[in-house]
Amino acid sequence: MSENREKIQEEIKKQGDLVRKLKSAKESKEKIDVEVKKLLALKAQVAEEDESASGTGQKFMLKTPKGTRDYNPQQMALRQGVLDKIVAVFKKHGAESIDTPVFERKEVLTGKYGEDSKLIYDLKDQGGEILSLRYDLTVPLARYLAMSKISSIKRYHIAKVYRRDNPAMTRGRYREFYQCDFDIAGTYDQMLPDAECVKVVSEILSGLDIGDYVIKLNHRLLLDGMFEACGVPADKFRSICSAVDKLDKSPWADVKREMMEEKGLDETTADQIGEYVQLAGGQELVEKLLQDPKLSAVKSAVSGLEQMRKLLTYCEVLGLTNEIKFDLSLARGLDYYTGVIYEAVLTGVPEISTNGGEMEPVTLGSVAGGGRYDNLVGMFDPRGKQVPCVGVSIGVERIFSLLEAKQAAEGIKIRTTDVEVYVASAHKGLHGQRLKVITELWDGGIKSEHSYKENPKLLVQLQHCEEQGIPLALILGDSELKRGVVKLREVTTRKEEEISRENIAEELSRRLSLLKN
Amino acid sequence: MSENREKIQEEIKKQGDLVRKLKSAKESKEKIDVEVKKLLALKAQVAEEDESASGTGQKFMLKTPKGTRDYNPQQMALRQGVLDKIVAVFKKHGAESIDTPVFERKEVLTGKYGEDSKLIYDLKDQGGEILSLRYDLTVPLARYLAMSKISSIKRYHIAKVYRRDNPAMTRGRYREFYQCDFDIAGTYDQMLPDAECVKVVSEILSGLDIGDYVIKLNHRLLLDGMFEACGVPADKFRSICSAVDKLDKSPWADVKREMMEEKGLDETTADQIGEYVQLAGGQELVEKLLQDPKLSAVKSAVSGLEQMRKLLTYCEVLGLTNEIKFDLSLARGLDYYTGVIYEAVLTGVPEISTNGGEMEPVTLGSVAGGGRYDNLVGMFDPRGKQVPCVGVSIGVERIFSLLEAKQAAEGIKIRTTDVEVYVASAHKGLHGQRLKVITELWDGGIKSEHSYKENPKLLVQLQHCEEQGIPLALILGDSELKRGVVKLREVTTRKEEEISRENIAEELSRRLSLLKN
Repeated sequence: MSENREKIQEEIKKQGDLVRKLKSAKESKEKIDVEVKKLLALKAQVAEEDESASGTGQKFMLKTPKGTRDYNPQQMALRQGVLDKIVAVFKKHGAESIDTPVFERKEVLTGKYGEDSKLIYDLKDQGGEILSLRYDLTVPLARYLAMSKISSIKRYHIAKVYRRDNPAMTRGRYREFYQCDFDIAGTYDQMLPDAECVKVVSEILSGLDIGDYVIKLNHRLLLDGMFEACGVPADKFRSICSAVDKLDKSPWADVKREMMEEKGLDETTADQIGEYVQLAGGQELVEKLLQDPKLSAVKSAVSGLEQMRKLLTYCEVLGLTNEIKFDLSLARGLDYYTGVIYEAVLTGVPEISTNGGEMEPVTLGSVAGGGRYDNLVGMFDPRGKQVPCVGVSIGVERIFSLLEAKQAAEGIKIRTTDVEVYVASAHKGLHGQRLKVITELWDGGIKSEHSYKENPKLLVQLQHCEEQGIPLALILGDSELKRGVVKLREVTTRKEEEISRENIAEELSRRLSLLKN
Repeated sequence: MSENREKIQEEIKKQGDLVRKLKSAKESKEKIDVEVKKLLALKAQVAEEDESASGTGQKFMLKTPKGTRDYNPQQMALRQGVLDKIVAVFKKHGAESIDTPVFERKEVLTGKYGEDSKLIYDLKDQGGEILSLRYDLTVPLARYLAMSKISSIKRYHIAKVYRRDNPAMTRGRYREFYQCDFDIAGTYDQMLPDAECVKVVSEILSGLDIGDYVIKLNHRLLLDGMFEACGVPADKFRSICSAVDKLDKSPWADVKREMMEEKGLDETTADQIGEYVQLAGGQELVEKLLQDPKLSAVKSAVSGLEQMRKLLTYCEVLGLTNEIKFDLSLARGLDYYTGVIYEAVLTGVPEISTNGGEMEPVTLGSVAGGGRYDNLVGMFDPRGKQVPCVGVSIGVERIFSLLEAKQAAEGIKIRTTDVEVYVASAHKGLHGQRLKVITELWDGGIKSEHSYKENPKLLVQLQHCEEQGIPLALILGDSELKRGVVKLREVTTRKEEEISRENIAEELSRRLSLLKN
């Protein structure tokens, strides 16, 4: 470690202490924020120092790129379990799957993400096309539909996307992360596909062991109509929408200040918006708002409300009432939404994580989101032909983080292999016999392994079985082999018996299927 | 299309005619090669023209980046089927899985791939670390093992890798492509893990419907010993090895010329190599070579041969004889191999594909390859600690291409969804009833879908079932619903009967499990 790095580490420690003191003294948010900012700046300095040290080749840093991680076998087993459950729901709803390249021609991504475009990873110009890593799976889907001239599809796509964002990895925020998208494209009747997306999210979140959740629903037409009714100029709809989107993280006072100081709204307008965005409820709220004198005078507001009424009716038929909420503060950041918007949040008690010594509540926030985007495909079609789309994206990284923390807390250990039988030697000189037996098992379709040492110790072999949760062990010994038998050990009970060496794969298959039932 | 582009297209046509004429006249290879080169240059010109046209923004090109492709639902179903089979074999052998980021810090990849390093995709320097897309899964594995201080693992990794190579997409060669790797890392006894890798490849290739294959085996120590015995200077071993590697594509005369003219060998040395690399066989060849006066005088040759003897003995126990071949011409391009090397090739009759009008034999070549690399992990460990590794990589893209062509030729259509029941309306006004029924089915775990139109035509709904291969359709009608029943139609036989509307999910589950058995 360089001297400078040590010095900064010392400062970080001091600054961390200060922040904790202010927090426990319940000092004002502004005061705390100032000190937290200083702390973050110090941490960034260390990171920069590390990067430049490695850049100059002074020392080789053995690490993954910033904001990324390897998945070890335990994490892979967890991840595969979660993805399998999600895919099962997508398939239950009849979705097909597609895949697109990890990078796109840069122009495909240009102009689709508003302010967030600065977070796109570009590839170096090495001659030929100018490329960027995909930022989400929605724009590639739209490009695919336009390019393949597909006018209807129900597809899922599970793949990694890339954002040069500030990673907060303890909260499941990475620069390389999975998205699990389900989208329905096609010209259909109002709200039928939109309601099914809510059902899909609900089935997925109910099937994962992550506690209670609520799916917030709103409509872009209603938001626009509300802005119009409050007197927001039309050219400010999108930027005011972005401000409203911050309500899940910031208090109304901050959002109001942004609307007035940065976006130039007058206080009356802002206050009127403030009253609406506090509203949330169900069908009764829709009816109430349809009677609202200001809203009912604006065409798009009425249209948005009527669609919300239909959506809520369908949701009720689909068995969804307690887990959904019509919420006027839901805005979603992305520009391309044109209709219904969704966002699912976990409502369980936030857990506490230690992030570099500091105790922080794990605010998992949104675990799914999406909406209707009817104009995106048309941006790619040479003749502007539209394909209406609606879809949801499951925030699996946050779900992985949550389940990982939960399993760690509960001391749960997942198996990382499926091995059913371990073939062991009781003494030296048996590796040839082991190879013969295990060949029969493999050829008989039995998941099995053995030691890659010629003469492993029996204890080591049995320990491996116990650590890995392998249910059965075959123990070969010369005296048994002479009698035409081998020892079969049930690993958990340590019960042993002799079985015939002949037709050993068949016998084990029989026993394994008994064990499963 | 620009005028210039049209002109070139015309020239391409003429040049193609010329090449075909020369070929059918059985003209000399040199003469044909000259004209083929001209043809390729013309084709490259068109590609460049296309790229620059899109680069200047004159027109928006709706395409995926060069050398990449989207996978449509049919291709995804095929791909998933192949990958499932491969993963099943990996798991049968007790492998865990890991994942690494799609990009690595550039220095991780530097100096690992020899000449091929020029094919690495770099990311643009946008501040922070300098990154490159992974070129294979082997170097990231070595980085992972060193970084996590893991001294033994048996893992598989299925993921995309990136090479700025000249794509030949009709033959399954892309710039973005899947690798399916199985590796065994750890300090074990000679040839036990190495032989299992051969078994894994054999089980995978036998399980896929791609015809006969042979797994060629050789040993880097034997190659080096052979070069030494023939009088190649030690500093030329790797470059002569690269020349030998071309024997699967070029005749010996060309390789010999390269050895003499480019690599500076004298003719006697080259001729001696030429005699050895024509040899192939089994255990008897090992014994013969151990008696060879020149080879038996070189320590590494003897050591390589003794290891080959052990490998072939183990392979025989593992039930592998006809599908393996000890082949002295097998060299493998990569620098990092230190022991056994493998390569599996298909031996079925090559099929013919039409590539832009020209008839070309589909030479699928290698469909799996790998070897032992004992020094790679040590290149990442700060103290140079070695972790010996051996592994194989399945060339799935070529397998996808082959199976796709085969299915197209045989007119086989794979289902792209798993939908079991389609809920249809017999007449108008039933979308609410449909939603109720399908909610029960979904909640009962039945894979089902319905139309997103309120009043779809019955014929259209039934056609969808037939096209998609959905086995059962429920047809709702007012008169049936009044009587508490719905019509159940078996799609293939078109047989219809009435079943009770009550407990409909249970009844369908029962019938579906009967259909499966």
